[in-house]
Amino acid sequence: MVDTPERSELARVDAVGLAEMVRTRQISPVELIDDTIDRIERIDPQINAVIQPSFEKARAVAASEPPDGPFRGVPMLLKDLWPCSEGDPFHLGVLGLKNASHTATFDANITTAYRRAGFVLCGRTNSPEMGLAATTEPLSYGATRNPWDLSRSPGGSSGGAAAAVAAGMLPAANASDGGGSIRIPAAMCGLVGLKPSRGRISQGPHNDEWSNSVQHVVCHTVRDSAAILDATAGPFPGDGVTAPAPAAPYAELVDQAPPRLRIGMLADSIRSRVAIDPEVALAVQQAAALLERLGHSVDDGSPAALHDEELIGSFGPAWTVGVAHSLEQFGEWIGRDITPDDVEPMTWRLAERGRRMEALELTRSSDAMLRFRRSMAQWWADGHDLLLTPTCLRPPALLGEMSATAPDPEAAILTTLAYSTLTAPFNTTGQPAISLPLARTSTGLPIGIQLVAAYGNEHLLLQVARQLELEVRWADQRSPLHP
Amino acid sequence: MVDTPERSELARVDAVGLAEMVRTRQISPVELIDDTIDRIERIDPQINAVIQPSFEKARAVAASEPPDGPFRGVPMLLKDLWPCSEGDPFHLGVLGLKNASHTATFDANITTAYRRAGFVLCGRTNSPEMGLAATTEPLSYGATRNPWDLSRSPGGSSGGAAAAVAAGMLPAANASDGGGSIRIPAAMCGLVGLKPSRGRISQGPHNDEWSNSVQHVVCHTVRDSAAILDATAGPFPGDGVTAPAPAAPYAELVDQAPPRLRIGMLADSIRSRVAIDPEVALAVQQAAALLERLGHSVDDGSPAALHDEELIGSFGPAWTVGVAHSLEQFGEWIGRDITPDDVEPMTWRLAERGRRMEALELTRSSDAMLRFRRSMAQWWADGHDLLLTPTCLRPPALLGEMSATAPDPEAAILTTLAYSTLTAPFNTTGQPAISLPLARTSTGLPIGIQLVAAYGNEHLLLQVARQLELEVRWADQRSPLHP
Repeated sequence: MVDTPERSELARVDAVGLAEMVRTRQISPVELIDDTIDRIERIDPQINAVIQPSFEKARAVAASEPPDGPFRGVPMLLKDLWPCSEGDPFHLGVLGLKNASHTATFDANITTAYRRAGFVLCGRTNSPEMGLAATTEPLSYGATRNPWDLSRSPGGSSGGAAAAVAAGMLPAANASDGGGSIRIPAAMCGLVGLKPSRGRISQGPHNDEWSNSVQHVVCHTVRDSAAILDATAGPFPGDGVTAPAPAAPYAELVDQAPPRLRIGMLADSIRSRVAIDPEVALAVQQAAALLERLGHSVDDGSPAALHDEELIGSFGPAWTVGVAHSLEQFGEWIGRDITPDDVEPMTWRLAERGRRMEALELTRSSDAMLRFRRSMAQWWADGHDLLLTPTCLRPPALLGEMSATAPDPEAAILTTLAYSTLTAPFNTTGQPAISLPLARTSTGLPIGIQLVAAYGNEHLLLQVARQLELEVRWADQRSPLHP
Repeated sequence: MVDTPERSELARVDAVGLAEMVRTRQISPVELIDDTIDRIERIDPQINAVIQPSFEKARAVAASEPPDGPFRGVPMLLKDLWPCSEGDPFHLGVLGLKNASHTATFDANITTAYRRAGFVLCGRTNSPEMGLAATTEPLSYGATRNPWDLSRSPGGSSGGAAAAVAAGMLPAANASDGGGSIRIPAAMCGLVGLKPSRGRISQGPHNDEWSNSVQHVVCHTVRDSAAILDATAGPFPGDGVTAPAPAAPYAELVDQAPPRLRIGMLADSIRSRVAIDPEVALAVQQAAALLERLGHSVDDGSPAALHDEELIGSFGPAWTVGVAHSLEQFGEWIGRDITPDDVEPMTWRLAERGRRMEALELTRSSDAMLRFRRSMAQWWADGHDLLLTPTCLRPPALLGEMSATAPDPEAAILTTLAYSTLTAPFNTTGQPAISLPLARTSTGLPIGIQLVAAYGNEHLLLQVARQLELEVRWADQRSPLHP
């Protein structure tokens, strides 16, 4: 066990750095995992991020020499959503699955990839029920708190992951994004959150790449996002979509300066019902100015389809039926039908709506999503390299504002829109998008700025993110809870 | 205009050869198109393959120097399905669209690709209504006849294309395959029919790569299939899936001998309700023996999922709702609702069923298709390179056996199963599959043999097809109608 001063320094080393320390024997996997577990045990009671620790398993893996991958001995937490791990709880934030003590019978592809890369899995992080919310306050496991302000939400649905990383428990944690669930918590917690291209990391075996959801991590440094993507990207037999391979590993590409980029900008809401916070709007303008200082060209162009309120919501029916279908699957897992007592009231209402829906409505929405995808892609094909937007229209929300028990459900939905309206469109398109912690409010809360590239162009996002990181040095600024 | 003996020889030159003749000025684009049109005008009255000629446009393009692509001046026919061409009829075999004289307002991506490659579009070929049948006998345009036996079906849905090529009108014609519609007509008409991987040729702008349908051609020679794939493959903005690019152009890869391949074989039906014809079963065994003589290893392994009658039919709900949704789209095109008078009775029944379907049934079937795709892909991932099967379980059917006016609809469905049961599963998986004219019945009718590769591995199919072509020399044997 390393002693205290070293330990607080260790909490500031990123995953690439920790892997290097293990490789050069400055620290052993056992020491590193013990240190991580110690930190989780000290900090987590304040934020409730790690809901299913698997510390004994982690210690056993660290002691028995984890696989000699690029991240040998580095800790990892899985989100309590689809990335299941054999023999561990697999509840997706669902009350009924928790009460049935449901466990996974296999590793998801990304779980296998983490293990193969040498990561040591230390437990699972909190998620809203089925990942459906922009906050992380499931009835099953309770609210996760934002390490920057314990009265606030860490965002969602990867709020447990983002809170764990922002609190300094570990440098990077698994996250997933079906409507903004990597980028929103990254924005709320001051982290780097890259949503990769559809089909970059396989969803095998149980999920379909054709869905709007993708996997990756939230973390502090751009190089971690790049190197962990290298370690987890790749196909699984039967994938629906495989993103085109990059010209070189992302860990190499990230150190190359990008060409002069043509960047469009959107510094406003795209929904009539929700407004942008002035501090957020200012942060976008400042990001634009910084990008211009770095030599890029920024104009106020943005894709026309993004301003079509009907098309941007076209994923709704698939989302709704998906909930109904998942409840059927959960029933198969636990051997009895899921009832209203097993899920939150909002989840049940969504499922009911899904059960009543006609197939034709779902097909019409698929067609609308196709038209949206084609129209959006054309804007990038016509010459823009990136789109610059706020990740969310507001700084971190207060806990309770978007929860299942919010006093005014209609207000909760509008608040959710303020967080997801600029993230969800890029789940429909399958484009890569990144949230970067480029700004802070006057009270010191994180503001995330989003950059969106054409399908397959993660390397551009990582390259420009690296340029911005060298200017803003956000990793030097940690949350009050960080050791 | 070239004179008669040369003209009959010209009908045996493939598309690559014709392009070479144009390039070396042995023939001009105008002479070549005039010759093609003359042949269509002489032969088509016997088989009804070319339902919408555009000869004047073709002559004008040929006269005004077509683009300097790899197929400059070579004739092409488009199928009367999704590959629309601006200003031309666009009826998809649908009575109501024909009666409304509906024309396309834009070029489909593949149409643009043909034009850019230098192909000269000469008209559109017959298709069953919406491509839904394994024969080509729409009420809208009447039956297309098989050039090998005018009492028989050319297969479907690319029956017009296959009949045109088998009758010697032109060397290659556009075709599409959503359940076997390239491979079945290729098998019935003694042609090479490659169904490329999902996302190899974009379906842009109006169709989704996530569907089970793909585009390409039916033709006589393997090098035509390879070179035309090179000329048409590639993405369009907003594609759902882009197949991984080959290591080199297919036209180069096709001349390299493949490594020793491990080939599984299925020489029987996979449906309890339909049996295999003994001559077809024998042809599969003979193909296996030939592949072994060529140095490959053939065993009688096949993917377990292919024998699961529930999973292989999992595409049904999407197919049914797709019909209902297409009728809605057609209504938008012609400005009024589609009624039972606008379509064949079977199409209307399918649409009715689609309209009644619940969204959850569609989602369950998507999930079953995912499980099927994963399970199938695993068989290839576990070590087999190819699967060898008959393309269809029977030699060419008689006209009327599968038509909309068949006296016994139940028997017509079973007959359709005999033709599509071994093709449709690979539309669900999105794998590449090729039908090769390796055998003939005792009465001289073509029998097609299918080879299936793992996703993205068209090059293996083309390479082994080229080996077989050098042995069997099927292009020397032409239909009785061929000049």
